[in-house]
Amino acid sequence: MDQQQLIECHERIKPFIHRTPVLTSRLINGMAEALLFFKCENFQRMGAFKMRGAANAIMQLTDEQKQNGVVTHSSGNFAQALSLAAQGLGVKAYIVMPNSAPQVKKDAVRGYGGKVIECEPNLQAREKASKEIMAQYGATFIHPSNDDQVILGQGTACMELLEDHPNLDYVVTPVGGGGLLAGTALAAHYFGNACKTIAGEPFEVDDAYRSLQSGKIETNQTTHTIADGLKTQLGDRNFPIIQKYVDAIVRVTEDEIISAMRIIWERLKIVCEPSSAVALAAVLKDKSKFQGKKIGIIISGGNVDLGRLPFNR
Amino acid sequence: MDQQQLIECHERIKPFIHRTPVLTSRLINGMAEALLFFKCENFQRMGAFKMRGAANAIMQLTDEQKQNGVVTHSSGNFAQALSLAAQGLGVKAYIVMPNSAPQVKKDAVRGYGGKVIECEPNLQAREKASKEIMAQYGATFIHPSNDDQVILGQGTACMELLEDHPNLDYVVTPVGGGGLLAGTALAAHYFGNACKTIAGEPFEVDDAYRSLQSGKIETNQTTHTIADGLKTQLGDRNFPIIQKYVDAIVRVTEDEIISAMRIIWERLKIVCEPSSAVALAAVLKDKSKFQGKKIGIIISGGNVDLGRLPFNR
Repeated sequence: MDQQQLIECHERIKPFIHRTPVLTSRLINGMAEALLFFKCENFQRMGAFKMRGAANAIMQLTDEQKQNGVVTHSSGNFAQALSLAAQGLGVKAYIVMPNSAPQVKKDAVRGYGGKVIECEPNLQAREKASKEIMAQYGATFIHPSNDDQVILGQGTACMELLEDHPNLDYVVTPVGGGGLLAGTALAAHYFGNACKTIAGEPFEVDDAYRSLQSGKIETNQTTHTIADGLKTQLGDRNFPIIQKYVDAIVRVTEDEIISAMRIIWERLKIVCEPSSAVALAAVLKDKSKFQGKKIGIIISGGNVDLGRLPFNR
Repeated sequence: MDQQQLIECHERIKPFIHRTPVLTSRLINGMAEALLFFKCENFQRMGAFKMRGAANAIMQLTDEQKQNGVVTHSSGNFAQALSLAAQGLGVKAYIVMPNSAPQVKKDAVRGYGGKVIECEPNLQAREKASKEIMAQYGATFIHPSNDDQVILGQGTACMELLEDHPNLDYVVTPVGGGGLLAGTALAAHYFGNACKTIAGEPFEVDDAYRSLQSGKIETNQTTHTIADGLKTQLGDRNFPIIQKYVDAIVRVTEDEIISAMRIIWERLKIVCEPSSAVALAAVLKDKSKFQGKKIGIIISGGNVDLGRLPFNR
């Protein structure tokens, strides 16, 4: 994937996405002893960067493919993103979700015009249901993170950030499935001025960290993290990009994630997901590395259950 | 107070305030069946519109007055605003606070360079302490809301909103002490295009509503509202302006406030105070009045205790 593909992707999806703002805070800069620029994808349509990749992936289909619809399996933001992007493009979206997914998430998908197909909450059931939809409707499967067009789409957030702030030393994202991290690393490579890409990852789901160490895609045995968007694993499309272009992965504890999330809510006055706070947690953890630097942080999303917040009295 | 005074005030305070963004949400517009423009003073310095009035009031003092410092009584946002504005202008700020005020609020004032003077939590003790500071240091008392220079300063948020969106039919604010409402009403009168000013007020502290009815300043016997910024009462400087220029005050229940607050947090992805949600609650309550209209809503502030949120599971 090259510079030109990123530029074309960005032009293509512009009518379907918001140009999200970049916020700063003197108080957070003081804490970090660095200059931090928060790219607020929590303000993106449907509340997360996933809208970018979903829109691009659908737009790259042939007319015949579009007529037959798209299918994915996700209980998170990609389910809503694919539904909303498909709705805007007049394409049918089938979303395979575990029957254990919260009602509010199923309702959100339906609210954006997606058709929910429920399955048992395990990998086999999910893949079986997806294949049935593909066979029955001829729908095209679009993976939430391990897809070239999705990766390009996710990279456009960093492109915009670098347009606004061209001389960043670092750009930091969370890593889950790896789509945002791979896209960001490509964008930082092609459009940055020696801008390095760093990821934050919870210790509890440190498969990406271990994958970089071992040189092959590792999995998580357990996924006990509050950062529920980061429980997925890398894939064969994004892992090579991450290996080539990502400078480091910084692991953080659950307490560090909650503490960073609280700083973002209290100081930036914005609502972000726990997953989004992982990037700031990484910067605050490895302070000496980032001291005095200009750092872009991608706030990945803002879809959070307000009835289940982790803040103590 | 006239148009020219508002323009001069805005120019004067610009170096000390943020030009805050205006956010919109398709989903909230759909709910309200109107076009809503949220002026985000939660992103203002120290987290609330109060910074505007505090900066203006201090800047209008004589050099001798500035040398002797300023004093106010407040346990809320004005305490922080006066401290931060004074710090930026090299002026000493004495803040009289009830000894029952939360430690975090005292710490915030001190963090902005204010000197906290504690007193018993009642009106007499508060006024006695303020008078002692005035006598001892020659400090000038600045009232949080009933002060012409404060009123002008608060009006600049609406001026900016009308610069960005000149054809608003309504601008809606919460009303507590009346500084924001009076300033907004002046700005809407002088800079709007037949733009009417409306206030939202909790039923539990509906002194402003009753004052407009009776034609004299009424008080609250009890103040059992979650909108803790709105417990104060009108004064002789802002009440005449409110009488002359405010179109209506819409009263809302505590449930309506919490529900509107949740909509703001979930849909706009921003952190606002309960007091800020009162304006949206008023618009959603009186839907037929606002249907199809362009409505500016001032999100007054974002300083909230994340450990004590009103959202149920």
